[in-house]
Amino acid sequence: MKPTIAILGATGAVGQEFLAILEQRNTPMASLRLLASPRSAGKTVKFRGEHLPIEAVGPKSFDGVNIALFSAGASVSKEWAPIAVKSGAVVIDNSSAFRMDPAIPLVIPEINSEAIGNARIIANPNCSTIIMNMVVWPLHKARRAKRIVVSTYQAASGAGWQAMQELENQAREMLAGKPATMQVFPHPIAFNLFSHNTTIGADGYNVEETKMVLETRKIFNEPNLAITATCVRVPVLRAHSESVNITFEQPITEREAREILAKAPGVKVVDDRAANYFPMPKDASGQDDCLVGRIRQDISQPDNRGLDLFVCGDQLRKGAALNAVQIAEVLHFCYLQ
Amino acid sequence: MKPTIAILGATGAVGQEFLAILEQRNTPMASLRLLASPRSAGKTVKFRGEHLPIEAVGPKSFDGVNIALFSAGASVSKEWAPIAVKSGAVVIDNSSAFRMDPAIPLVIPEINSEAIGNARIIANPNCSTIIMNMVVWPLHKARRAKRIVVSTYQAASGAGWQAMQELENQAREMLAGKPATMQVFPHPIAFNLFSHNTTIGADGYNVEETKMVLETRKIFNEPNLAITATCVRVPVLRAHSESVNITFEQPITEREAREILAKAPGVKVVDDRAANYFPMPKDASGQDDCLVGRIRQDISQPDNRGLDLFVCGDQLRKGAALNAVQIAEVLHFCYLQ
Repeated sequence: MKPTIAILGATGAVGQEFLAILEQRNTPMASLRLLASPRSAGKTVKFRGEHLPIEAVGPKSFDGVNIALFSAGASVSKEWAPIAVKSGAVVIDNSSAFRMDPAIPLVIPEINSEAIGNARIIANPNCSTIIMNMVVWPLHKARRAKRIVVSTYQAASGAGWQAMQELENQAREMLAGKPATMQVFPHPIAFNLFSHNTTIGADGYNVEETKMVLETRKIFNEPNLAITATCVRVPVLRAHSESVNITFEQPITEREAREILAKAPGVKVVDDRAANYFPMPKDASGQDDCLVGRIRQDISQPDNRGLDLFVCGDQLRKGAALNAVQIAEVLHFCYLQ
Repeated sequence: MKPTIAILGATGAVGQEFLAILEQRNTPMASLRLLASPRSAGKTVKFRGEHLPIEAVGPKSFDGVNIALFSAGASVSKEWAPIAVKSGAVVIDNSSAFRMDPAIPLVIPEINSEAIGNARIIANPNCSTIIMNMVVWPLHKARRAKRIVVSTYQAASGAGWQAMQELENQAREMLAGKPATMQVFPHPIAFNLFSHNTTIGADGYNVEETKMVLETRKIFNEPNLAITATCVRVPVLRAHSESVNITFEQPITEREAREILAKAPGVKVVDDRAANYFPMPKDASGQDDCLVGRIRQDISQPDNRGLDLFVCGDQLRKGAALNAVQIAEVLHFCYLQ
């Protein structure tokens, strides 16, 4: 039985990536239904050689749908996920709406696909969280991570395609000596960078940083894992980078780490010291694998208890759409048969 | 007695900043001599309303010079510093040539101006090192830093004005759909970022990272301070940013840290959580102060033993030329009278 798949938020940056990935992976499906806000209804989108119409989401939209991929923001997810579930669909939600709900699994298939169980809503983690954990998890499994210090270099795409356009437009303006026009971001992003512009909590961490901390603990099922994160937006279009420092309970050498990461699914080691070639956003963009390099013993820690590494991953692919499609594939092959 | 000052490397990005700072600060001097490679000789530069000629550096260039500001690369410094010293000048050298020489002081005036003593060569530290330590030192003095984990977001200016031009040119090319022309950097810098392109040592750290580790220990006179650094070049023109995580021997609260930093010389606290306004390269550029914000208790550490913070400083000013001019001022006011 091939599933009928729906995409809610088909016109967004992640929605467009859903389509690209379903086409590239030739994901088995009976049919595909494209849903969006009434504003986008009536447009068509090309998929597997056909022009598919975009429908305004409504109470009947999920009738007959087996898997619904949501990426239209948390409030839209909260409104429509219960309706989709009542219609019989399993929802894979890319928003933050359900991620920390204890009843809802938060899944990176390479890490915890077994958490899916018989859930009818499955949450797709935050992009920075996914990209970091593709490389931290295999090391954690081997030597138990005790503490993580991460600083991010996040692309504009995380704020949608308008943000990517804003970066390009501002660069054009500034190169012409004009002031930068700001619509999406509160500060200029071209030739600048800024602390991730999400609300700051009482502890001084912004929402993005808190997601990285809490979601990692949930995905790893390690409620006490010590993590601190500093999330920064940089003038890059669509791949996030992260500088990750890990303290381990058991000693781990740089060579062991490289061997573990070389075998890790969805990870590609790019670590050529002689050629000074390491992960870069330009190479991670459009790629499924997360790139990891700068793998080295942390000289500030005794007894091989620390590692430093640098990871780049496509925010729209593994950081969002690809991970959700992988969850759909697990559902199709393991659960919905 | 007003000193006669010479600048070697007057046409470089730092050299130009020397001139701007000497003019802005109205630094007392009897005269100013501008020196560069024979390639640049014959050009003139405007300073305090006069057109000063640039002379090719030669054996007689330092006769009568009291203070020589060097910023023309390590090999030029090694060649000419001994000659300048023999001519009676004190050399303040912005290159890496002498920084780790135990006989030569490495000075950030706000931290260790007393190290100058009767040295005839004084080394100006690495830019990332200066900017980090403007905020780490006052906290270290109060509660003793035990370990530092730093990730940098370094501007193009650190590789000279050609690198700044390369960033702008590449942005223009890429916005026009053309491939990026590379001359200074080994990878595209526009809309990309990459691990600092200095040689990687046997321990996996690149030269920039090793500078941050070893120079900080020397400036602080703390040979065992544990530091790990990850240095990254980002598409920003002239201000470096750094995400700094510090573990302390004594507990320190976020409020204490903010009070200490508010009083620290050369530091400006920019930490408005409600407005989501924190240090940014665009605000640090052209400023003397290093901006610090995102000051918060590190939630991954028990008992208030950790802090996270984010600092931005102008790489050409406090990261290079300003620090050297400040050393010259200390020399003038405290030592050469």
